[in-house]
Amino acid sequence: MEQLQNRITQDGKVLSNTVLQVDRFLNHQIDPDLMVDIGRAFAERFKSAGITKIVTLESSGIAPAVMAGLELDVPVIFARKKKSLTLVEQFYHAEVYSYTKSETNNIFVSKAFIEADDVVLLIDDFLANGQAAKGLMQIVEQAGAQLAGLGIVIEKGFQGGGDELRQSNIRVESLAIIDSLEDGHVTFRNEAHP
Amino acid sequence: MEQLQNRITQDGKVLSNTVLQVDRFLNHQIDPDLMVDIGRAFAERFKSAGITKIVTLESSGIAPAVMAGLELDVPVIFARKKKSLTLVEQFYHAEVYSYTKSETNNIFVSKAFIEADDVVLLIDDFLANGQAAKGLMQIVEQAGAQLAGLGIVIEKGFQGGGDELRQSNIRVESLAIIDSLEDGHVTFRNEAHP
Repeated sequence: MEQLQNRITQDGKVLSNTVLQVDRFLNHQIDPDLMVDIGRAFAERFKSAGITKIVTLESSGIAPAVMAGLELDVPVIFARKKKSLTLVEQFYHAEVYSYTKSETNNIFVSKAFIEADDVVLLIDDFLANGQAAKGLMQIVEQAGAQLAGLGIVIEKGFQGGGDELRQSNIRVESLAIIDSLEDGHVTFRNEAHP
Repeated sequence: MEQLQNRITQDGKVLSNTVLQVDRFLNHQIDPDLMVDIGRAFAERFKSAGITKIVTLESSGIAPAVMAGLELDVPVIFARKKKSLTLVEQFYHAEVYSYTKSETNNIFVSKAFIEADDVVLLIDDFLANGQAAKGLMQIVEQAGAQLAGLGIVIEKGFQGGGDELRQSNIRVESLAIIDSLEDGHVTFRNEAHP
């Protein structure tokens, strides 16, 4: 998605060889118009997949997921994060380790909102090692629902999570894939889609 | 906002005399179409206020805030919550006590995103005792920006936070005001706006 790549180049800040800050438009300050275009891009890629629900993870996944939900005309569920979990029997849940924050969170979704006949699109702002994606996939599996694939705003290709999922035949559609942040410079992988 | 009241009546669950669960359409599962209408309703009420930024609080404020930002054509910033805070000098921050969760969170916004010449609309999903609203107002004040008012999806009128703010001449626009949850029944305050 050229517009997103341009925005990353223009407003992203490379903080290290592994950390890209995009808090000017995605995960602290949000550009609503860009979110509409991101939602449309996800909808375009998954429009033939029969999606019935979108599941994302609080907080930065919510804006792109809701815009995709609007385009695909399906409800959006955001998994919540908590250090510990009570009332476990009412929730699907999984553990997600964050390398950036060096902490483990339980993520959970009420059993009321994903059913066995759902076709689920997972959306998240970032895909790096794939820990959050795997947690969300476990939740879809617990619900007995079908996973249509993952829609990712920014994939850090050099951290391998996306390619590992693709090798397991999971459909991963990333709107921007970054192959390197070395020397303070963002290098994008050539996009498979225009 | 009649459509929201109907939705609360239809899909809200009164869990006690003080707790209304709206996780079917607002704060766990999200109805994107309803969010569009909520965003439009906020924009309609604040369109003459010269808003330059919308500030909300993760996570449930994000969807309504982004839709309002889309209509008003302004960026949306979501304050982040954390138990403790590092790098304090880079952030505006405030403490927010949650009665529901019996916990105090620091909420913070990067100093990069609110400037002294901004006119800020605060948006949140709920207003009860007004603790979160006051925390967000402190952040606007620290930035030296102008507060245009608060846009609230659901105000629990019986907990008094909204009326207390109105008495301090803060503009509070709530799309639904609930005056009682007694006997498992949602009683709305008559709306000032159609």
